[in-house]
Amino acid sequence: MPESRGSLLQASLVRLVRRGAWAHAGRLLAKSHSAEIAEVLDRLTRSDRKAVFDLLDSAEARAEVLALLEFAARADLLGEFDPEMSAQILRHMPPDDAADVLRELPRETSDNILGAIGDAAEDIESLLGYTEDTAGAIMSTEFFALPESLTAKEAVERLQQRQDTEASFYVYVVDDRSYLVGVLSLRQLILQPPYTLLKDCMVGEPIRVRTDDDQEEVAQLVARYDLLAVPVVDHSNVLVGVVTVDDVIDVMREEATEDILKMAGTTWEEVKSPGVFRGAWIRFPWLAASFAGGFGGILLLARFEDVIQQTLALTFFLPIILGMGGNVASQCAMVVVRGLATGRLEVSSVGRIIGHEFGTSLLLAVTFSFALGIVATYLGFGPRHFPIVVSLGMFVAITIAAMLGTTLPLLFSRLGADPAIASGPFVTTSTDIVGIAMFCLVAYLML
Amino acid sequence: MPESRGSLLQASLVRLVRRGAWAHAGRLLAKSHSAEIAEVLDRLTRSDRKAVFDLLDSAEARAEVLALLEFAARADLLGEFDPEMSAQILRHMPPDDAADVLRELPRETSDNILGAIGDAAEDIESLLGYTEDTAGAIMSTEFFALPESLTAKEAVERLQQRQDTEASFYVYVVDDRSYLVGVLSLRQLILQPPYTLLKDCMVGEPIRVRTDDDQEEVAQLVARYDLLAVPVVDHSNVLVGVVTVDDVIDVMREEATEDILKMAGTTWEEVKSPGVFRGAWIRFPWLAASFAGGFGGILLLARFEDVIQQTLALTFFLPIILGMGGNVASQCAMVVVRGLATGRLEVSSVGRIIGHEFGTSLLLAVTFSFALGIVATYLGFGPRHFPIVVSLGMFVAITIAAMLGTTLPLLFSRLGADPAIASGPFVTTSTDIVGIAMFCLVAYLML
Repeated sequence: MPESRGSLLQASLVRLVRRGAWAHAGRLLAKSHSAEIAEVLDRLTRSDRKAVFDLLDSAEARAEVLALLEFAARADLLGEFDPEMSAQILRHMPPDDAADVLRELPRETSDNILGAIGDAAEDIESLLGYTEDTAGAIMSTEFFALPESLTAKEAVERLQQRQDTEASFYVYVVDDRSYLVGVLSLRQLILQPPYTLLKDCMVGEPIRVRTDDDQEEVAQLVARYDLLAVPVVDHSNVLVGVVTVDDVIDVMREEATEDILKMAGTTWEEVKSPGVFRGAWIRFPWLAASFAGGFGGILLLARFEDVIQQTLALTFFLPIILGMGGNVASQCAMVVVRGLATGRLEVSSVGRIIGHEFGTSLLLAVTFSFALGIVATYLGFGPRHFPIVVSLGMFVAITIAAMLGTTLPLLFSRLGADPAIASGPFVTTSTDIVGIAMFCLVAYLML
Repeated sequence: MPESRGSLLQASLVRLVRRGAWAHAGRLLAKSHSAEIAEVLDRLTRSDRKAVFDLLDSAEARAEVLALLEFAARADLLGEFDPEMSAQILRHMPPDDAADVLRELPRETSDNILGAIGDAAEDIESLLGYTEDTAGAIMSTEFFALPESLTAKEAVERLQQRQDTEASFYVYVVDDRSYLVGVLSLRQLILQPPYTLLKDCMVGEPIRVRTDDDQEEVAQLVARYDLLAVPVVDHSNVLVGVVTVDDVIDVMREEATEDILKMAGTTWEEVKSPGVFRGAWIRFPWLAASFAGGFGGILLLARFEDVIQQTLALTFFLPIILGMGGNVASQCAMVVVRGLATGRLEVSSVGRIIGHEFGTSLLLAVTFSFALGIVATYLGFGPRHFPIVVSLGMFVAITIAAMLGTTLPLLFSRLGADPAIASGPFVTTSTDIVGIAMFCLVAYLML
């Protein structure tokens, strides 16, 4: 339903813009939600995007849409503006969003824009000062804090006077040194008798994070305690910002990406700041490990030269056996890694996990070994019991691959390491070596 | 910081429980947040977990902790109770959480518990009626809806009378048929002059979802519009529930897992409802595709039998060349897939993406081909220019693998298919076949 509504808006806008019906397109935009407009802009081509964005009639509207765009579309648009124009838009964004946008731009461009922003740049600059991926870097500096000596009635009045750009659902309570001492939800505040002091009705010792806490820890905390926002304090417990749940959602999406890329032996850094040499450097270690494993494979195969010489057809079957073993191993590894990460599996119930993965793989090993035997018989390579050799070779390779794929992540997890790493380099490399060894051994014994 | 606090509680609890200091452990629990207790329980062994859970003194406290536990720990605990005991705990949970818990249990067990719950089971049963992974299945039925004819003052009074278990931050406005017509944040409500009618100050046509909308769409909507909750309506636009942002966070975590598993050729279903035959059935299609690819590899290698016969050492190098090609291909594919999913890359800028991935892989191809040439020279296999053959073979295999890994997900994305699937089966299988073909071709031409 939401999908089709966006597509409709997109189709109408593109038609109007291409026809040059600017006034009509402008009216359509004025009736649409910024997030809808952003979604459409993300999908337009570069020139259509620029044309539609130019139709937005105020710097506020532009700021709102720009903050909601995906990275690539945003970088594209900002590339078209001079610093003065960019500054005018960024001035209408909450400082944390503006800092996010600037962080994505090349240093020189962002410095020029900061210069053009003028006075308001101070807040943004202090946010830019926090290390990336910490609570400080993702927090918002617009929050609602009140002294503990106010009454509930006074608090509601203060709230009514404030004109916030970001919605606030918690009221933070601070003492006279600006130290965070308590929290109240807006709902709890409304429920209080008018003359209760905040310090008497607040929830004391609120859950908080420090500016230098890792963003992933912050996200886990918010998810774990079902919070809508978590206050951020500096080293002396002074309240300096708030991380809201929408920022947490962005962090979680980023962390999921990080996990996926780790399994492939690369990192998010590469997607974020592309560059050919940098990319190669990031990917190098895993490939080097795989290369070392491959070298072991060469030596192993060379040892069985006589067997191979005698039955050349063995080598035709080597890639399929290694490929199937590798696939089964990575399936087992992924299931275990994600099961552990989401709490569906527990390290303590090792026996059950291994049993399940092993049972599943055994079924698959029997099926595909049998199929390979038939293929070998049909092709008629090698001596008479050759089909049995390749069939048995695949069976052993798959079952051992399943064991490696299941146990390596569990072992890593027990040792306190990240199981995602195990499912990448270690599983594929060790599966290849063990697969070669087993296949050669079977061939050697039977031929 | 939050981490160490949990560990401290865990250490203390385990020590007290093992010593039999029940009273002391109980006092410690009473001072801790449910989420902290849940976190500790998730990490305890089965018997310690049961002992600590039994120390929780009320059904409310037990319900709160149980709702926050990870799947495995929860299933474990519920397995220890009789239906009467489980029912007593579930009665104190919000109906949507209770339905979630019951959905995880075997059919028979959950029916027994529902029977024991009695009257309150009605709400839970209606939630259980919605298809899994839809808005209906994840929504909460506890929300705050008011008729449009109330004044702001009356609305605040109603709010003060309600004793909700779940926090509500939006007030939904309905007409006399219970149709959803508007929404107000609690903050907007407080800002209104007392005698304004809700229908005059509400935001009309609120963003909403239908009970049968897919949970992933709901999550994207909430993330996109930075909402804290989204109302759920039935087919006739009657407000029936609310999906809150904490449920959305759970959905996003699940969807990230789904993506990762899809790349490995399996699904979340397998992690959720394990079973050996089921697991094998889910994994079968991808392995079958890979098997078919492997069959192609056998035929290809058989065609080059003469070349292989002449220089047997070629086969020693086949696994390392295919392995490195596969790794490079899946790195390229993962970077492209995640780049597309997070908006860091755009399908429209195909040229730049291909250029970057190709450049990176070219550097890696040169490095490792050179290394393989040295290895081959050192090992002294085959005829004189054999090292050049394997080196060139690896170079060609890696660069073509990089092209496949980069372009297949882009192609899938252009065709409207899920690029995550491309990075799994298609990339590895096609890389293997092309790798074999290229290696054999180089050897054939040069030897």
